[in-house]
Amino acid sequence: MSPAAGEVPARRIGIDVGGTKALGVAIDPTGVVVAEDLRPTPRGPASLAPLIDVLAELSNVLGAEGCVGVGVPGLVSRDGVLRAAPNLDGVADFEVGRLLSERLGHRVEVDSDATCAAIAEWKLGAGRGVDHLMLVTLGTGIGGGVVANGRIDRGMNGFAGEFGHMVVDPDGPPCPCGKRGCWERYASGSGLGMLARQAAVGGRLRAVVRHAGGDAESVRGEHVQAAAREDDVEALAVIDEFARWVGLGLSNLTNVLDPEMFVLGGGLAAGADLYLDPIRRWYQEYLYQADLRPLPRIEFAHWGPLAGAVGAALLTADR
Amino acid sequence: MSPAAGEVPARRIGIDVGGTKALGVAIDPTGVVVAEDLRPTPRGPASLAPLIDVLAELSNVLGAEGCVGVGVPGLVSRDGVLRAAPNLDGVADFEVGRLLSERLGHRVEVDSDATCAAIAEWKLGAGRGVDHLMLVTLGTGIGGGVVANGRIDRGMNGFAGEFGHMVVDPDGPPCPCGKRGCWERYASGSGLGMLARQAAVGGRLRAVVRHAGGDAESVRGEHVQAAAREDDVEALAVIDEFARWVGLGLSNLTNVLDPEMFVLGGGLAAGADLYLDPIRRWYQEYLYQADLRPLPRIEFAHWGPLAGAVGAALLTADR
Repeated sequence: MSPAAGEVPARRIGIDVGGTKALGVAIDPTGVVVAEDLRPTPRGPASLAPLIDVLAELSNVLGAEGCVGVGVPGLVSRDGVLRAAPNLDGVADFEVGRLLSERLGHRVEVDSDATCAAIAEWKLGAGRGVDHLMLVTLGTGIGGGVVANGRIDRGMNGFAGEFGHMVVDPDGPPCPCGKRGCWERYASGSGLGMLARQAAVGGRLRAVVRHAGGDAESVRGEHVQAAAREDDVEALAVIDEFARWVGLGLSNLTNVLDPEMFVLGGGLAAGADLYLDPIRRWYQEYLYQADLRPLPRIEFAHWGPLAGAVGAALLTADR
Repeated sequence: MSPAAGEVPARRIGIDVGGTKALGVAIDPTGVVVAEDLRPTPRGPASLAPLIDVLAELSNVLGAEGCVGVGVPGLVSRDGVLRAAPNLDGVADFEVGRLLSERLGHRVEVDSDATCAAIAEWKLGAGRGVDHLMLVTLGTGIGGGVVANGRIDRGMNGFAGEFGHMVVDPDGPPCPCGKRGCWERYASGSGLGMLARQAAVGGRLRAVVRHAGGDAESVRGEHVQAAAREDDVEALAVIDEFARWVGLGLSNLTNVLDPEMFVLGGGLAAGADLYLDPIRRWYQEYLYQADLRPLPRIEFAHWGPLAGAVGAALLTADR
């Protein structure tokens, strides 16, 4: 039974829809995760109706009593429509919120996965209580979320936080978005792989290439990380170059919004111990007027891979 | 006589301190400028006490009855201290607000000139009523101000809006800030001059060089503008290249904050008719997911050179 209007539900449900799996959590009123469930994301040309089925199943299994929050990987308009999602088949103006709400009989709130992660870290994570916070997800690409003046800033259309497509090198490598030298060409997991392949096909990075099965063209970020964990000097140099690009972009963002703190999320958070020191060092190097302000904090996300789902569960509280 | 607490003063005083002159205005409660006065900015190593004298004179001449607002060219902390100002001699942690307030016996509010200009355009100018607005001043350098969710966003330290020092080309020309390829190396008045000199010393831009007295090394932005007004094709090509850099940076800012509108101010506003079309064209070219959103508006500032002073006068109303 749904709680009466105004009551706090005993548990909030949040679901983070990824390109390969959908992760649902239930959190209690104190912010503790009391249940989790994971389902494969339906794929293929007719995957949208099955996706609604999966989201409804997750909501029911987790005990939805009232509003359900959903984080999705793409551009979400301010009325909760998923306008585009490069990693979900067939998505264009997908009204995931309306469809799921009709199925469940509960209100459904939808936002981008990165905005959800920002809410989780701001309300219950590494940036609790920080009024000026930027969350940056370093994954296949780069996404983000903005907290300014103690409020989530979604922008005019809901598209704020697309940090990955800042151009930082107009003559750089082409990006699928049609431009060249977008920040995520360098400072994401894909970027780390590209920087490593450039070095590897030049004959360097032998330990990294070994981790990639001997083929320089197959090198990816995870192989750099594996070699770096064995203290391979060349792998650590690639990580330093990667960290330089991350630091450059974070300093650009600082010049726009002057945050108190950056929280870094996404897949690379799993290698936080390798990345954090060089990122902080390069960030300080690039920071404008560094001697006139306290150095903004840079931390990796407290919630790790749960951030999107936890933040989705908090969407109802945010609006 | 000061009005009683809670009353709206009959006129608000705002002063915009520039590197060479200080402009004061008085505005009435309906936003009409009812008086203006201009004084030279004192220069030289002992110029700070004389600057307070000038600000006090301007305030008195304009009929200050209550709070006075002052816009200053530099980094202003959230408590109104001018931390640094490259174009004012000897400034470091200059408590202009406290000193002027002691002199006048009125409250004094201080903020950066670009934030003041943003307030003027947002409250009474080109962006009246726009909840997501970015003001970008294209002058010797590039400054800016941010309105997000219908509020001025000054950031953690008051340093939001330093758009000019976004790095857009890490191998670009050195910037006095210590980095390379800052946006203002290309997209400011100085940037326009640099782009033109690069072409001129390569033997091109003869009409522009003629406007500069025949010396390619002396070419500045104003000479490009003069030749472009005579429909010189090479000058127009330099303006197009300049507009490409402006558009690139505006699209970067869009990816961060998704504004509804950009208002362009600063010295280049005087040549708005030359710049606006190519800037809009290049902006649209660089805009991420342009087909999923209404094209953000780009306009030049309504208040022109008065924007900083008018916004300073509104500072009291904003806080």
